[in-house]
Amino acid sequence: MNRADQARGIFVIAPTPFHPDGRIDESSVDRMTDFFLAAGADGITVLGQLGEAPKMTHEESVGLVKRVIARAKVPIVVGVSAPGFAAMHALTQDVMALGASGVMIAPPNTLRTDDSIVQHYKQASEAIGADVPFVIQDYPLTFSVQMTPAVIRRIATETKSCWFLKHEDWPGLEKISQLRAWDQDGSMARLPILIGNNALFLDFEVERGADGANTGYCFPDMLVDVVRLSKAGKRDEAHDLFDAHLPLIRYEQQPGPGLAVRKYVMMRRGIIASDTLRKPGAALTPAARAEVDYLMARLARRDARAKVS
Amino acid sequence: MNRADQARGIFVIAPTPFHPDGRIDESSVDRMTDFFLAAGADGITVLGQLGEAPKMTHEESVGLVKRVIARAKVPIVVGVSAPGFAAMHALTQDVMALGASGVMIAPPNTLRTDDSIVQHYKQASEAIGADVPFVIQDYPLTFSVQMTPAVIRRIATETKSCWFLKHEDWPGLEKISQLRAWDQDGSMARLPILIGNNALFLDFEVERGADGANTGYCFPDMLVDVVRLSKAGKRDEAHDLFDAHLPLIRYEQQPGPGLAVRKYVMMRRGIIASDTLRKPGAALTPAARAEVDYLMARLARRDARAKVS
Amino acid sequence: MNRADQARGIFVIAPTPFHPDGRIDESSVDRMTDFFLAAGADGITVLGQLGEAPKMTHEESVGLVKRVIARAKVPIVVGVSAPGFAAMHALTQDVMALGASGVMIAPPNTLRTDDSIVQHYKQASEAIGADVPFVIQDYPLTFSVQMTPAVIRRIATETKSCWFLKHEDWPGLEKISQLRAWDQDGSMARLPILIGNNALFLDFEVERGADGANTGYCFPDMLVDVVRLSKAGKRDEAHDLFDAHLPLIRYEQQPGPGLAVRKYVMMRRGIIASDTLRKPGAALTPAARAEVDYLMARLARRDARAKVS
Amino acid sequence: MNRADQARGIFVIAPTPFHPDGRIDESSVDRMTDFFLAAGADGITVLGQLGEAPKMTHEESVGLVKRVIARAKVPIVVGVSAPGFAAMHALTQDVMALGASGVMIAPPNTLRTDDSIVQHYKQASEAIGADVPFVIQDYPLTFSVQMTPAVIRRIATETKSCWFLKHEDWPGLEKISQLRAWDQDGSMARLPILIGNNALFLDFEVERGADGANTGYCFPDMLVDVVRLSKAGKRDEAHDLFDAHLPLIRYEQQPGPGLAVRKYVMMRRGIIASDTLRKPGAALTPAARAEVDYLMARLARRDARAKVS
Repeated sequence: MNRADQARGIFVIAPTPFHPDGRIDESSVDRMTDFFLAAGADGITVLGQLGEAPKMTHEESVGLVKRVIARAKVPIVVGVSAPGFAAMHALTQDVMALGASGVMIAPPNTLRTDDSIVQHYKQASEAIGADVPFVIQDYPLTFSVQMTPAVIRRIATETKSCWFLKHEDWPGLEKISQLRAWDQDGSMARLPILIGNNALFLDFEVERGADGANTGYCFPDMLVDVVRLSKAGKRDEAHDLFDAHLPLIRYEQQPGPGLAVRKYVMMRRGIIASDTLRKPGAALTPAARAEVDYLMARLARRDARAKVS
Repeated sequence: MNRADQARGIFVIAPTPFHPDGRIDESSVDRMTDFFLAAGADGITVLGQLGEAPKMTHEESVGLVKRVIARAKVPIVVGVSAPGFAAMHALTQDVMALGASGVMIAPPNTLRTDDSIVQHYKQASEAIGADVPFVIQDYPLTFSVQMTPAVIRRIATETKSCWFLKHEDWPGLEKISQLRAWDQDGSMARLPILIGNNALFLDFEVERGADGANTGYCFPDMLVDVVRLSKAGKRDEAHDLFDAHLPLIRYEQQPGPGLAVRKYVMMRRGIIASDTLRKPGAALTPAARAEVDYLMARLARRDARAKVS
Repeated sequence: MNRADQARGIFVIAPTPFHPDGRIDESSVDRMTDFFLAAGADGITVLGQLGEAPKMTHEESVGLVKRVIARAKVPIVVGVSAPGFAAMHALTQDVMALGASGVMIAPPNTLRTDDSIVQHYKQASEAIGADVPFVIQDYPLTFSVQMTPAVIRRIATETKSCWFLKHEDWPGLEKISQLRAWDQDGSMARLPILIGNNALFLDFEVERGADGANTGYCFPDMLVDVVRLSKAGKRDEAHDLFDAHLPLIRYEQQPGPGLAVRKYVMMRRGIIASDTLRKPGAALTPAARAEVDYLMARLARRDARAKVS
Repeated sequence: MNRADQARGIFVIAPTPFHPDGRIDESSVDRMTDFFLAAGADGITVLGQLGEAPKMTHEESVGLVKRVIARAKVPIVVGVSAPGFAAMHALTQDVMALGASGVMIAPPNTLRTDDSIVQHYKQASEAIGADVPFVIQDYPLTFSVQMTPAVIRRIATETKSCWFLKHEDWPGLEKISQLRAWDQDGSMARLPILIGNNALFLDFEVERGADGANTGYCFPDMLVDVVRLSKAGKRDEAHDLFDAHLPLIRYEQQPGPGLAVRKYVMMRRGIIASDTLRKPGAALTPAARAEVDYLMARLARRDARAKVS
């Protein structure tokens, strides 16, 4: 396998569908997986932060991964972040045995120095097995850990099983440019970069050198199209499509209620049966639902206009 | 003075224009002030975070305020946040004597409990003078201080000189709804709410009950129009206008480079002569400038289309 | 059971003894449990932060608890803090079935408002079962969560299964006095308070109204004696004994290497076979070991003098 | 001037004495300065965090420095930390003109990466003047900024006017050993290290290679003696003296009330007239005063015994 080739395009971050009583909704899992594939996803990440991973038991986690892998024909990445290496190792072993392609690791929010971040990824890689491909999750807004480009280069260089960077630093455009400049001047082997942060800067991030997106915005079909248009040099068309979605992207990117927005839209689109979140997550208020409805109606009107013209 | 009446519409957050060598550019200050008034600003806030207040000496700060007040016919708010009450008091005295209408106070980023936040505003009000109107700046993204609606109610109720809330919590829609619900059920006197956070949610925040905006987005003219349209019930038109600006709003809202974006656009619009920032601020990279140029070109094209149709 | 009666004296925080290769050292677990009982412990807390809980799998955790419970005749508290309620519930169920007396819950380090802290404990209690006694762990130095006395009162009042407070705020003396004042004026039902923070203020905390200690200082026998002397009114003797240990208490209280100090002393005292920590924990440097040796030698000399006189 | 020679022994951190009404108490300033000199101080630092610097106006700050310099015959260091470089520059200019020997700079609590810390000191040095000797204040407990030994080496190497390190990291023993190892293997020019953190680890820090202390513990005379004894090889005597003070050192080191403890003891010792703090600082409670009285009585009894024997 050439890892760099596999990590491009759209790796969708999958939410975990629950029944209103909190149990995992397996038929929604299946329908959602089919939807992602039909939308053109190049990979699927399960058990990320917005997959409500910390709210599930080990058994539930493994069951979910098994179900998605059974159905998907694309690489599956599994979030295995945990407060300690024992749980991280246990989950990694189980999901790799099931056929996962790699795992995603977020840094603990207590790391404060460059060295401590690099060391965490080294020790984590050692703990899960030096042959298990892992994804660096660089999301300071949520994890409070700041990785400079030089730190990312050190992790990617010193830890051989580093697969790709889930880049969701904010601001993050210059970071992509720096990493790509190091590609080009030979001071760093090319590291695939998939962007996150709900795609809030996807338009420019792809232009700066990102290989695609690794996020769960409720219209992954749009993400696929924007990346395709952008890579094909159709800049204005890519931005036109992206801009049409930006009001909703922004709305869904809110920390906290964002996941409820995502699930609500996916429910309205018929992808999952319920927008239930496990605690401490909470449902959208009626006012918020009405706002999302309004944004969806505006999107639909634009699509209708686009078809006419 | 009926304070509630004064705090509505758009209170622009003014940047501080510098010459390329770092000195304050007074003719740009004048031109900028005139521009804000022509754009329909209802007030101007100087020496906010994005006014680079901490980078200026006391004398420079007072000089800037004096110059803006001399020219403006609208209420002037002055940011007086400081690590201690002595400097806060000194600046407040000087600017109130010059004719400022009130001051803005941000919480120190070490406050962690509800009581400590309320107490800070009480002590600050006592320190600057119990008759000086002050603005609560609720901006957790920058200050790391979380104020619940109940805390804001306590501040507004227990400290009589509280003027209005600069609301820039994120997510923040439900907070506005909660404060407005308390207005209506009589459990709180009406507190004017002007939103900030670069207007990223202005569209819905006005619908939730905000009285306007207190932010420095580089097209304050647009902010004026959106609030006007929204208050006039022209919802779709308000959103159409807002959405057209959202790609740039989002770009300017980036923490760190955001102020350089703002100054660059204001320079390109002819409002200020240079986009210089004082250290540790840094200029935009060429790549970032090109991206802003692209976003401005797209906005201009839309305006041209709008005029034709 | 009268909970208040059970939560007094010394509840030792037990480290988890490992073999040099990282496996749990069961015979050291037994020897350590016997030692705690012989030292006069009134209870034992396993799987706390300094029990390296996050570094162990669920199975290892349950096995450890089972072994300690089988041997001990005192109440056993089990740390069940986890990033989500699912894991918290799973571990609680298993250890309560084995005979644990209750569980300890630390707040996630993202909580920032009074309400969010109270709500966390409510939801956690609901998740683990409203009949399971739980301990509030109030340790801002490690968890970055600040609980005011009023917040603690709300948790203790609104969540019936609250058992006792592990008080390790710093500074924390006035907090104890406030909670005890509320006892006495009837505005709060008496909540047992056991202090932590490596006993750094045990001397005065007992005088302020704490019921004992819930910490793992490497000489729990001293903690027993200090509390006994203090409660018996022998103030100077209590302080003399405490002060003799303070140089080592302070040394062991260092965040990070502190646990290695504790295990090293317990190894030197013959209580556990190895001072091994699981990663990312690290062994003491030779210089640090020599410093601990010196502090132990000074303690031994004092004991020798005390016996002579 | 050979800077390294000047930075050794005890540089006392001076509190700012206030009258009960909040004005600076100039005769107490004089008496305190005389006391420090008589106690054997090698230098004095004014306007540190515990000098209540942020609570004073620029004019008050300059006045205080002037008064201390006029009286003292030892090097005076002035804390000039400020939210921006303009205020930092203004104060530095004024105090250097008055005869200060250098300034102390703390990092803003938002710095998160190695590079950002190094850059801050470079820009600060540039702002205040590349010839002004400055002290690095490494105090993560208060400033939330973590500097590795490598970061300190970079600052000391890349910024020529770096004078000495005020080391108050915790844990911090290995950091001293690392910096001293680099001295010895030639990979770093010797940087003087004076320890802070209320001297909580002075005993071992001097043994690890620190050159003295830069702290304000209320018995600076003891600090002088401990360093002298330790440097003279009288290890046990140094520890005996230190240990006798440790109960009070620990009590004074509490973040928050610590400064009130310090001022209260200095008032009781007749060094300053009042223990008043400016807001938001608060006086000790009666219970806390009684505890400090008790600790002082125990110290006095020990001194009496020492004199007899």
